[in-house]
Amino acid sequence: MHSEAKPGADIDAFREAALSCPIPAAVALIGERWAFLILRGAFNGLEHFEQFQAGLGIARNILSDRLAKLVAGDIMKRSADASDRRKVIYSLTKKGESLLPVMLAVRQWGEDWGHGGAQMVLADNRDRRPIQRINICAEDGRDVGLRDLIWLSRDEVERKADRAA
Amino acid sequence: MHSEAKPGADIDAFREAALSCPIPAAVALIGERWAFLILRGAFNGLEHFEQFQAGLGIARNILSDRLAKLVAGDIMKRSADASDRRKVIYSLTKKGESLLPVMLAVRQWGEDWGHGGAQMVLADNRDRRPIQRINICAEDGRDVGLRDLIWLSRDEVERKADRAA
Repeated sequence: MHSEAKPGADIDAFREAALSCPIPAAVALIGERWAFLILRGAFNGLEHFEQFQAGLGIARNILSDRLAKLVAGDIMKRSADASDRRKVIYSLTKKGESLLPVMLAVRQWGEDWGHGGAQMVLADNRDRRPIQRINICAEDGRDVGLRDLIWLSRDEVERKADRAA
Repeated sequence: MHSEAKPGADIDAFREAALSCPIPAAVALIGERWAFLILRGAFNGLEHFEQFQAGLGIARNILSDRLAKLVAGDIMKRSADASDRRKVIYSLTKKGESLLPVMLAVRQWGEDWGHGGAQMVLADNRDRRPIQRINICAEDGRDVGLRDLIWLSRDEVERKADRAA
């Protein structure tokens, strides 16, 4: 992917965008080794502190710390277990659930590059057939790769849409 | 996404899979704040040490360290600049380039949740139209969400495919 200008030409703008962007901090939060394992556990139905603790083989203080950070980042939430109000459930928020494409893209990348996990396949419950690979698609559905991509300003895209309408 | 068994039932298997899986270590490598910014720079055409340094506003020793880790992890590679053999180029390996869906899924998530970056749009260079959102698709193309997904063993999927053939 590339911009119309040479990389060097807009390096100050790039730097400003990089430093002010909150995504790297969010990525660091969810990408930390234990946090990532907790998230993966949550996506797979783990709910109670004890389940995470046993399921991930994680020290209790580290688990407490990472759960607190994920809750503070609005990725996970605490709630009372409906079947036993003394118990706390940790589950994904909407923002956390919407990490699904990220988690699956990471899994696909790991499988493609020989990082285990290939015994299990993720399928659609309706037809029990494997889901499609995650690809980058052009508007008309063609798969596109890194060298097909270009950055455009939103203004330019909207002007073009107006002309087309 | 869920397995046929209750989460608690196969917690030992889950734990073993979690601890032996190399993906979390790879995620920690690329998800670290500076490493992620370096990767994003590389996807956007930064190549030389000085470009990364100026473009990311990163300390030289941290940049050296993170580039070395990304090279050791086979995400980036060093090569000589064809126009000036004394200069070194840092670029994405095939394994690094194949992180594109991960990077775009992260960007999309960040935009969806108000984390900046919405002035620029990623488009296909051929028709200069924005690319599609990254979604999880069933085999027949329907969008599926977290609650539609189920883990199946590869054996079961292949048996079904054999019967269908």
